[in-house]
Amino acid sequence: MNFVKTIEWKEDKVVLLDQRRLPAEEIYITCEDYEGLARAIETMAVREAPTLSAAAAFGAALGAMGISAKNFEAFFEKFGGVCNRLARTRPTAATLFWALEKMRQCALANRERPVTGIIQSLKEEALNIYNGVVESRRLIGEYGHPLLNDGDGVLTHCNASVAVGVIQAANEAGKRIHIYADETRPRLQGAKITAWELQKYGIQVTVICDTMTGSLMAAGKIQKCIVGADRVAANGDVANKIGTYGVALMAHHHKIPFYVACPTSTIDPATKDSSQITIEERDPKEVTHIGNIQITPNHVDILNPAFDITPARFVTGIITEKGLLRPPFKLL
Amino acid sequence: MNFVKTIEWKEDKVVLLDQRRLPAEEIYITCEDYEGLARAIETMAVREAPTLSAAAAFGAALGAMGISAKNFEAFFEKFGGVCNRLARTRPTAATLFWALEKMRQCALANRERPVTGIIQSLKEEALNIYNGVVESRRLIGEYGHPLLNDGDGVLTHCNASVAVGVIQAANEAGKRIHIYADETRPRLQGAKITAWELQKYGIQVTVICDTMTGSLMAAGKIQKCIVGADRVAANGDVANKIGTYGVALMAHHHKIPFYVACPTSTIDPATKDSSQITIEERDPKEVTHIGNIQITPNHVDILNPAFDITPARFVTGIITEKGLLRPPFKLL
Repeated sequence: MNFVKTIEWKEDKVVLLDQRRLPAEEIYITCEDYEGLARAIETMAVREAPTLSAAAAFGAALGAMGISAKNFEAFFEKFGGVCNRLARTRPTAATLFWALEKMRQCALANRERPVTGIIQSLKEEALNIYNGVVESRRLIGEYGHPLLNDGDGVLTHCNASVAVGVIQAANEAGKRIHIYADETRPRLQGAKITAWELQKYGIQVTVICDTMTGSLMAAGKIQKCIVGADRVAANGDVANKIGTYGVALMAHHHKIPFYVACPTSTIDPATKDSSQITIEERDPKEVTHIGNIQITPNHVDILNPAFDITPARFVTGIITEKGLLRPPFKLL
Repeated sequence: MNFVKTIEWKEDKVVLLDQRRLPAEEIYITCEDYEGLARAIETMAVREAPTLSAAAAFGAALGAMGISAKNFEAFFEKFGGVCNRLARTRPTAATLFWALEKMRQCALANRERPVTGIIQSLKEEALNIYNGVVESRRLIGEYGHPLLNDGDGVLTHCNASVAVGVIQAANEAGKRIHIYADETRPRLQGAKITAWELQKYGIQVTVICDTMTGSLMAAGKIQKCIVGADRVAANGDVANKIGTYGVALMAHHHKIPFYVACPTSTIDPATKDSSQITIEERDPKEVTHIGNIQITPNHVDILNPAFDITPARFVTGIITEKGLLRPPFKLL
């Protein structure tokens, strides 16, 4: 399965596709240190849960390479600072914390080696995490595509490479699938990234505004919904891009199966249910402006929550690299 | 009750607020003939159901003033052409057809008068229709505001001067109402016009993206929804701006009352139910571009239905100038 490489480790640097410039331009950024990568995550040049885990791991490896320390203790203290900096970039992304924790465990497991050896191990671990992301995308496609039938109309929300992976796998299995990609205000990742990605893979895609979902469902154009997840709680509640909950509610009403595609690293056993999930409030300018165009009156109040919660009861299944999970979800 | 005059008859010309320029600029256009007014309607400079009825009536009066004819038959043939031109501007707007039909009836009722007299009657009838729109907005406010309680959060969709009128009436009755105006993609009339209008009236307003509605409802921030209507069928099905159906579904799920505010001229007894309503498909550029900014990849498919249908069973009540209608709706 071909896929767009949004991030790559190349000659001890990290090369990433600047997703903010899509679909107008395909521009790659090279990060030489962890601070550059942290800023790329913060400013949304790199985004989307599984990619964020690779980015965090690569960032930690870049950070480790920049540390000069005589012994493990000195190294580990500085490495902790690197990981903390990377963790602060996105408070909602469970996979990012998961990857950083794996990197920390790797450093601890190699504490008896000389510092250069620890750094070497961390680079290898980061590549393992990256390869795991790629393999997990493939497996999620394998487990997910039998859920789609030839001729299905499938609604996507925002951009989720694993959800696109399921559609791609169905397409490669010879099923003709028509995707309706909702644009996903405020940041328009559906219109900008999902549509661009599906075009690259030669899959039929129609972009709609978020306001059109209900009437498309009522008209019988949508047979399945597939979305990604930023975090899944142990009870199956899903935190994902703002608007996911509305899609799930409308799908529920129209009896349309609603699937979440995500690696198991997105499932956080420490989060009992959605009441424990903090929702980031992002810059009001994402709502008031599109590019340099102001669409609201001056000084108007704005709300801009980045995510919402879809209660587990609206989720038909969670497609992971370990298989399809069905309710009642017991993810602990 | 003060209100923003979006259209006015002034010295035998029609002056209208160019709603496309809001909220950045408050620019008024003067139309000296019916063709100019027809183009203003087509290009969305003037919009919104009740205003459209006044615009159509004023357009027909301007058209009548431009006709030179020796007798009623010659006049009425040319006047029919004027009305047909105005009717072609918006296939969904019931109030526009209603106003044109009133103008035609007025011409017929005055057929015994000299042509100058008929034209005079048509100018008076157009002003009657306009005054009726103003009075009906006031009455809808009267009948509607008891539905709102002090402290309510009210969600609006798109822009509807009569829905704003209800909120204004509640505000003038001393109730503190907080409005959440969804932006209403693709044309953003909520972000641009409703927010601007409410600011003018000094009413607290927060603009949200259409994707945020569900989570705001789940968080208990919305106590009522009030929307307008482009056409109401005899069974109570409501055709209104795309996205209305989604709002109604989500309100239904959260047990939030969902009200439609519209003059009775919007109710079309000739339309049995929504299956008889044609939905305009508008220019894909409304979706692909915001101002001059392209947000989708080149050559991607787009859907852009201007309206959707909210089945009568999701409508808690229809607020008209004749009172509040409750289900089962028997509007014939």
